[in-house]
Amino acid sequence: MSVVVRNPPRADAATTKGLAEYGVATVHEAQGRTGLLDPALRPVWSGAHIAGTAVTVSVPPGDNWMLHVAVEQCRDGDILVVAPTTPSEAGYFGDLLATSVAARGVRGLVIDAGCRDIAVLRDMGFPVWARHISAFGTVKETLGDVNTPVVCGGQLITPGDVLVADDDGVVRVPRARAEQVLEASRAREDREAALRDRYASGELGLDINAMRERLAAKGLTYVEYGDATA
Amino acid sequence: MSVVVRNPPRADAATTKGLAEYGVATVHEAQGRTGLLDPALRPVWSGAHIAGTAVTVSVPPGDNWMLHVAVEQCRDGDILVVAPTTPSEAGYFGDLLATSVAARGVRGLVIDAGCRDIAVLRDMGFPVWARHISAFGTVKETLGDVNTPVVCGGQLITPGDVLVADDDGVVRVPRARAEQVLEASRAREDREAALRDRYASGELGLDINAMRERLAAKGLTYVEYGDATA
Amino acid sequence: MSVVVRNPPRADAATTKGLAEYGVATVHEAQGRTGLLDPALRPVWSGAHIAGTAVTVSVPPGDNWMLHVAVEQCRDGDILVVAPTTPSEAGYFGDLLATSVAARGVRGLVIDAGCRDIAVLRDMGFPVWARHISAFGTVKETLGDVNTPVVCGGQLITPGDVLVADDDGVVRVPRARAEQVLEASRAREDREAALRDRYASGELGLDINAMRERLAAKGLTYVEYGDATA
Amino acid sequence: MSVVVRNPPRADAATTKGLAEYGVATVHEAQGRTGLLDPALRPVWSGAHIAGTAVTVSVPPGDNWMLHVAVEQCRDGDILVVAPTTPSEAGYFGDLLATSVAARGVRGLVIDAGCRDIAVLRDMGFPVWARHISAFGTVKETLGDVNTPVVCGGQLITPGDVLVADDDGVVRVPRARAEQVLEASRAREDREAALRDRYASGELGLDINAMRERLAAKGLTYVEYGDATA
Amino acid sequence: MSVVVRNPPRADAATTKGLAEYGVATVHEAQGRTGLLDPALRPVWSGAHIAGTAVTVSVPPGDNWMLHVAVEQCRDGDILVVAPTTPSEAGYFGDLLATSVAARGVRGLVIDAGCRDIAVLRDMGFPVWARHISAFGTVKETLGDVNTPVVCGGQLITPGDVLVADDDGVVRVPRARAEQVLEASRAREDREAALRDRYASGELGLDINAMRERLAAKGLTYVEYGDATA
Amino acid sequence: MSVVVRNPPRADAATTKGLAEYGVATVHEAQGRTGLLDPALRPVWSGAHIAGTAVTVSVPPGDNWMLHVAVEQCRDGDILVVAPTTPSEAGYFGDLLATSVAARGVRGLVIDAGCRDIAVLRDMGFPVWARHISAFGTVKETLGDVNTPVVCGGQLITPGDVLVADDDGVVRVPRARAEQVLEASRAREDREAALRDRYASGELGLDINAMRERLAAKGLTYVEYGDATA
Repeated sequence: MSVVVRNPPRADAATTKGLAEYGVATVHEAQGRTGLLDPALRPVWSGAHIAGTAVTVSVPPGDNWMLHVAVEQCRDGDILVVAPTTPSEAGYFGDLLATSVAARGVRGLVIDAGCRDIAVLRDMGFPVWARHISAFGTVKETLGDVNTPVVCGGQLITPGDVLVADDDGVVRVPRARAEQVLEASRAREDREAALRDRYASGELGLDINAMRERLAAKGLTYVEYGDATA
Repeated sequence: MSVVVRNPPRADAATTKGLAEYGVATVHEAQGRTGLLDPALRPVWSGAHIAGTAVTVSVPPGDNWMLHVAVEQCRDGDILVVAPTTPSEAGYFGDLLATSVAARGVRGLVIDAGCRDIAVLRDMGFPVWARHISAFGTVKETLGDVNTPVVCGGQLITPGDVLVADDDGVVRVPRARAEQVLEASRAREDREAALRDRYASGELGLDINAMRERLAAKGLTYVEYGDATA
Repeated sequence: MSVVVRNPPRADAATTKGLAEYGVATVHEAQGRTGLLDPALRPVWSGAHIAGTAVTVSVPPGDNWMLHVAVEQCRDGDILVVAPTTPSEAGYFGDLLATSVAARGVRGLVIDAGCRDIAVLRDMGFPVWARHISAFGTVKETLGDVNTPVVCGGQLITPGDVLVADDDGVVRVPRARAEQVLEASRAREDREAALRDRYASGELGLDINAMRERLAAKGLTYVEYGDATA
Repeated sequence: MSVVVRNPPRADAATTKGLAEYGVATVHEAQGRTGLLDPALRPVWSGAHIAGTAVTVSVPPGDNWMLHVAVEQCRDGDILVVAPTTPSEAGYFGDLLATSVAARGVRGLVIDAGCRDIAVLRDMGFPVWARHISAFGTVKETLGDVNTPVVCGGQLITPGDVLVADDDGVVRVPRARAEQVLEASRAREDREAALRDRYASGELGLDINAMRERLAAKGLTYVEYGDATA
Repeated sequence: MSVVVRNPPRADAATTKGLAEYGVATVHEAQGRTGLLDPALRPVWSGAHIAGTAVTVSVPPGDNWMLHVAVEQCRDGDILVVAPTTPSEAGYFGDLLATSVAARGVRGLVIDAGCRDIAVLRDMGFPVWARHISAFGTVKETLGDVNTPVVCGGQLITPGDVLVADDDGVVRVPRARAEQVLEASRAREDREAALRDRYASGELGLDINAMRERLAAKGLTYVEYGDATA
Repeated sequence: MSVVVRNPPRADAATTKGLAEYGVATVHEAQGRTGLLDPALRPVWSGAHIAGTAVTVSVPPGDNWMLHVAVEQCRDGDILVVAPTTPSEAGYFGDLLATSVAARGVRGLVIDAGCRDIAVLRDMGFPVWARHISAFGTVKETLGDVNTPVVCGGQLITPGDVLVADDDGVVRVPRARAEQVLEASRAREDREAALRDRYASGELGLDINAMRERLAAKGLTYVEYGDATA
């Protein structure tokens, strides 16, 4: 019962592009602290920052056949999202597949398994967030699914959802909420930009956020060293 | 019973600055192989090398309120040292707090928990050694302590102690021993500098350290290949 | 019963040098998916790519005395391969030993334990693949063996075997098979180079590899979104 | 936007009870190798084997307030399923909560976080599958959700789904497929029961499953020791 | 500068004995959620529950010589607390040492490293909480310290402190606070005993703790299934 | 190039049986601290203690076909030793295979991967040492090898070698050394039995092993508490 779902609706391209301007931490806060993938999925090279629409792939352990099937379903602006049905450290994805999806405008890969050809991927500028790095390849024996919902890094991802990824990790934005989250991210970033100047000038968070009274009410006590040692 | 201890004595500024010239491995050896923090605390970007005096913060799991309290206690030359009361992967520290403490001359952060906004921290040149990287933020609900002794990375750290940190990890130098450890580090480094030239010229450690006799006494045997295979 | 075996036969120097032109993933496939070391052995700095002949060292936990013994057995083109008899996170190897072996033409180090002085090693351009990074040094009390077979990263390595290492990890090529594996790597790389152009031009793996019929036979079904949702 | 959903439909009680007669491995196979939770969720004491309908709870890190809310939503035959929004090792659940849910007929707990009072739970015979064991308690400050879909142990779990748990781990059976999976489990178990006798009598899987020809076709070769050593 | 400190003051024997009647989770709460050792220190066999006064031992990696020195410093009612100066998985402690300390009335061992002879320890009824189980023994070459403060499982432990340990883990009670913590544990346990009956009779925590109003104020909403699905 | 080697020489049956009387820790010491498998291979139920001759199986990731092939090569007194060519958490072995090998007199299983049907194995009394417990089954698609040397738990194991396993872990005894190691184990155990009585009667290791002088020479100092605090 393996299936490839064609042409699932994607989040709006302009909205998705807009989300790429905000960090994962900002987007995560902006949507109410939801959707963060397991931090064990790390960038295989640092410095990339992308957003894109999910093409999902459910794969058997140690078998990357469905990745070749998935390529054909990818469009400009997509991110490939790969989840094995049971934990696997194998290297499912390397430079040939990267070349293939990059030719279709895919922004990057998020994989809850292993990846290889790291040095080439870095040279190509093709970003990958992976749980493992391993040169151990895969076979092409067993089917899986493309564009069905998958759990990747502990988050349920529906095809067409937005993923945002940077050096902090990866966050999922549901397609239906993408515009609203973009607004909230922008608002949050504007607030933080203003705050950043105040912090940089030496103002304290205690004063900016008027925390002193609440801290005192909770019982915070200040003592001079020397009076303090019990 | 939350407390902020003001103005604990710091290790001497010149001594602390001096220690920044020696690597963590050298300082660790120079003080008799003590004080190394758990190697699981890794730099979030590589290439930094700092020394500073500890401002310690004990924080509840997933709550960074006390970091804002701690900022006010920081001075030029300090390092912020943060330990949760139970393991937490949350991202306690990001670019706003970094901006705030950098404005006060803080050299960096050592945290036995998570950190976020990695890309911005790298761009700012603000170094952090952390157990986790996570975009998942924290709340501001519960108190903790500032400038009381904490266990961070398995080491007891007293406010005012010196921390030295580089790509190898982090080592703690007790305030009272800072000058003596600086001397010992310098002496060790001088010895190693001389040795380095001899090693580079091809001399062997076996000869430089006169090890051959002791090895033979312990029973080391040399055989030619072919005679060796049992 | 500690032993140093002198002058074990090495894989041919030209063959070894030739293998350095192929990535670990390629070599691993070329020799039938065998010989990959545990992916937990990671480069301590990224971007290096080497091949060399193994000088093996079996060391006690937390004791690096035998590394000094091993240096003398190294020649131009070798790689030092170090395996502790029980797991150890200690930093067995630092800048002085790196200086010493680099002076003899050693290409790099593969160690199933800890390494230190990372920043200096990166500055020297001396590559290391290690399980741990730790400033905690070792003692020089107990003997081990040089140039006997060792298990490192879960692979049996015989002195004189070829190791190839890059950002993906480390693979072992048995001495007797080195030439054959070089041929197979070259053939594979030639094939992939041709394929890379086709992939880059937008051709699909499905067509290049004629997968469509076999996928259909296995039961793969395509549905349009909307018809698909169960 | 915290919500408690009341009275979600449960899988049929008799079907659920029937599934408790089959092991997790059997049920997992019977539904096509899907639905297995991360094996890192282990029983806190061994020997229990249960099935029940899921009451799901999404909880903040280190905060178990919603568990008290969830108790009221539990009925006889349920299993409590708890997932934190970010990883937490805290002990969310102990003997008081166990007493409370046991009084309502809850069969057990599956939690992707920590649990405590292990010895009492074992004495009570209340089974728990947890990622961590930790005496570190939680606070009651922040809301979450009850009976909304959660990802627990990497699987999406909908309220009313069946969970089956034994010493091998935990598997989820979707409510809509419960009866079909029960049938398939029974059929599989019947087949295996018959096979077990043949295996016990010394018959070989090679013959029972007629594997010899297919193995030979794939190239399997038998050699006598002595002729074999290359 | 290795030292053995003789006859450090111990927490009162009756108080210590009294603490053994309360679980680790209860004692941890009773002293304000402090003092819990890293949950990675697990009992090597389950079912034991002890309290005792700490005799501390700081040991080099892979070297248990100081354990023999420590035995002489132990008295009836003590617990041996062992911390290596750097992580070690070696098996420092086995049946002979257990026999030796049991003969002096030692209640058990807490070790932030490895232990062996597990089956014999279980048969003897000698309880151990350890980070690792490993048959790999240690040497007797290098000194350490007895009865100086150590960090074990991330907690600073002073000789004479009380440790309480059960299947949930290990908690440290400072000597000076032992009596006060005993009182607080007793009070907490009395409260919980009363509550346990109410929970067992089916009363809800929501009502017992009058949580409903506060939950509503925070915004908790109840919906019937069917009205709920967004 | 898959091969099954028939009838490799086994270690002597009486010698193997004799080794089952000694613990893993004892045998490991008796053969000079070599041959211990990675302590991450743990018994799936506790209390078993076996010795047997290795029938080795090299398996692809997630594929247990070769286990069925291996059964036929097993005899009374053997232990099945299974190593995947790349890390796999899958459950390769369950109750049917256990029934099959038990019918041939196999003593147990050592597997550097996953195992399932734990509860049944415990009820059968069939012991298994495994790296993982997982209900996720395997396929039967790809060949491997039987009775060729494998690396399992980081140790090279040759068919016919003796494995000894108990709650401490697993140790390998080379076939050629089995008798000598049996002698050494017996001698060691006799020594320890005598010592055990002395330890039980309260004699100290310090005196039994005449350590006091050597400790003093190394610089060990005793101080009374109160004089000691620096």
